[in-house]
Amino acid sequence: MNKNPANYVPLTPISFLHRTADIYGDHQSVIYENRAYTWKESRERCVRIASSLNGYGVKPGDTVSVLAFNTPEMFESHFSIPMAGAILNTINIRLDASTIAYIFDDSNAKMLFVDRELFTVASEALSIASVNPKIVVINDSFAGSQPDISSDAIDYEALVDNGDPLYNWTMPSDEWSSLSLSYTSGTTGKPKGVVYHHRGSYLMSMGTVVGWSLPNHPVYLYSVPLFHCNGWGHAWTMAALAGTVICLRSFDPEKVFNLLDEHRVTHFGGAPIMLNMLANAPKEIKKSFKREIKVMTAGAPPPAKVLESMMLLGFNVMHVYGLQKHMDTFFRQRLKHHGLMKVCGACQAELKARSQIPDD
Amino acid sequence: MNKNPANYVPLTPISFLHRTADIYGDHQSVIYENRAYTWKESRERCVRIASSLNGYGVKPGDTVSVLAFNTPEMFESHFSIPMAGAILNTINIRLDASTIAYIFDDSNAKMLFVDRELFTVASEALSIASVNPKIVVINDSFAGSQPDISSDAIDYEALVDNGDPLYNWTMPSDEWSSLSLSYTSGTTGKPKGVVYHHRGSYLMSMGTVVGWSLPNHPVYLYSVPLFHCNGWGHAWTMAALAGTVICLRSFDPEKVFNLLDEHRVTHFGGAPIMLNMLANAPKEIKKSFKREIKVMTAGAPPPAKVLESMMLLGFNVMHVYGLQKHMDTFFRQRLKHHGLMKVCGACQAELKARSQIPDD
Repeated sequence: MNKNPANYVPLTPISFLHRTADIYGDHQSVIYENRAYTWKESRERCVRIASSLNGYGVKPGDTVSVLAFNTPEMFESHFSIPMAGAILNTINIRLDASTIAYIFDDSNAKMLFVDRELFTVASEALSIASVNPKIVVINDSFAGSQPDISSDAIDYEALVDNGDPLYNWTMPSDEWSSLSLSYTSGTTGKPKGVVYHHRGSYLMSMGTVVGWSLPNHPVYLYSVPLFHCNGWGHAWTMAALAGTVICLRSFDPEKVFNLLDEHRVTHFGGAPIMLNMLANAPKEIKKSFKREIKVMTAGAPPPAKVLESMMLLGFNVMHVYGLQKHMDTFFRQRLKHHGLMKVCGACQAELKARSQIPDD
Repeated sequence: MNKNPANYVPLTPISFLHRTADIYGDHQSVIYENRAYTWKESRERCVRIASSLNGYGVKPGDTVSVLAFNTPEMFESHFSIPMAGAILNTINIRLDASTIAYIFDDSNAKMLFVDRELFTVASEALSIASVNPKIVVINDSFAGSQPDISSDAIDYEALVDNGDPLYNWTMPSDEWSSLSLSYTSGTTGKPKGVVYHHRGSYLMSMGTVVGWSLPNHPVYLYSVPLFHCNGWGHAWTMAALAGTVICLRSFDPEKVFNLLDEHRVTHFGGAPIMLNMLANAPKEIKKSFKREIKVMTAGAPPPAKVLESMMLLGFNVMHVYGLQKHMDTFFRQRLKHHGLMKVCGACQAELKARSQIPDD
């Protein structure tokens, strides 16, 4: 037949939130500064927000854009917006107003969630764009600046407060339907939209569990921006595993070391530049850990010296994607010396095929 | 659309074998008595067997029945038969000849893999049945009895030896197509066939990783019969995780304790009766373990005393299915006393809903 049976259950990462809220409802879901939620609370907040979106006229297939830092609201958007049947469009917070305007128009944004600190650039973008999305402001008291907000903007917490906790949220009728829409950074022209479907994101989230050998209940520091490829899908993976997500607005090495320590973080991820910042942090802020902390990095591999420093601090680095040509003999020897050859299996197989690393 | 795109990759647990053989090819896949294979070897054996099945006229959609113990051949059948496009029909080895004959006919078996020890009952069943499958004999030297084998039976190893290692094995064209066919035990009439599709088995296998918090490279003692619901799908799960499967023909407590020790087994499963046999084994064969060994049990819960004894031997028991009414106060108190409340989340939620266990 090659089509799905009429009564099939579509694959969607939304299902992770509901399973985990049902069976691990009292476990911590998200911790950020002075706020903490349980999985039961996170689900209720997301259901309420989905109902409010619906109340503001958001229909299945509509786009809701999000211009925000890695705060709990950004995490929630990965569930609440799809639960309204809508498509989550996260936008790189480092883009300029005209590029953001292009994305608003190209994605045909119906609503916009914006962090208070980014309200000025968002307003400028909206003055350029043709679309006119309703604005929801994330009023984070830890925002770096607090510009004035136009009076017709909706407060994010009002979406929660006025939402219906018993709202019959939307399950996608088709697992191939759109879940999220991200844009390239426009290096070779206008940014291009990339769509993730519900099925693909479900499978990616489950695949990460196997690929990274993730246990139940990891404590994950969300240092990878959620606007970047949906933060590698880990919001969904953490929901599947009833993990705890530690949020932070921006990657500050001192803050990162403190959060790793304070929350006994087990896993985090970051681009090579982030690992570099940790490895080369001043002595007075650097911390080393007796327990192993697992780190996923992606992109071009960090220099051997950085990886070595990271390992000596207690980090077990897995490199999941990117060119490996810099993984030179020095690096390999040092890794082996420390008994820490942790390049993922897929990369190792590829490298072997290219004869760049010897067989073990 | 609600149908799959023309060029989609169907979900199938066969894919686990190929990924793992590619990236962890030198890891041990299966160990049984004096035999051991790597994942690369297991894949090659399965590809060769699939090509031989094809050579004997097995076509996509045909049924291949298997009447066997948990030996490497039974494990391989979970991949080789589907890789020929055929449907794997494992049969309960404890059934009588007339019931087996009914299953041969109802499933329209084209070929039969049979362990040497079961050749007599299989021959008797075939004399009753209308179908006339080609017979392949698993010539295990550890079989409990060695009846004479008819001269036209094919030796299992000949399927490997004469098979093509470069055979272009069959990927299911549709993930909803049939992977395996098992029969109920016929308590309320004739046994009824139950079909698993490729998609469902892929998802079940991945779900087990999350549900049991399985790491990469577990060492799994296959004490659950693979003829029973495909051994809870763990052959596929172990392939996904590049685990090592320790085979055993039958559940003998002394053998089990020895294998757990010898192979440093990390995980195994068993019906409550099996746990009971371990918990109440004579002192001279019983072993306790300092490391934690994870045990999955299913069905009616074992008595509190058995669970307590298991825990004191170093076993962490997760109960995944079955009525929980016997989980009485004594059991709960003892579990808490040992800090070992390990009922799975789903059961715990259900029990809470029924107010049978207090909130933690």
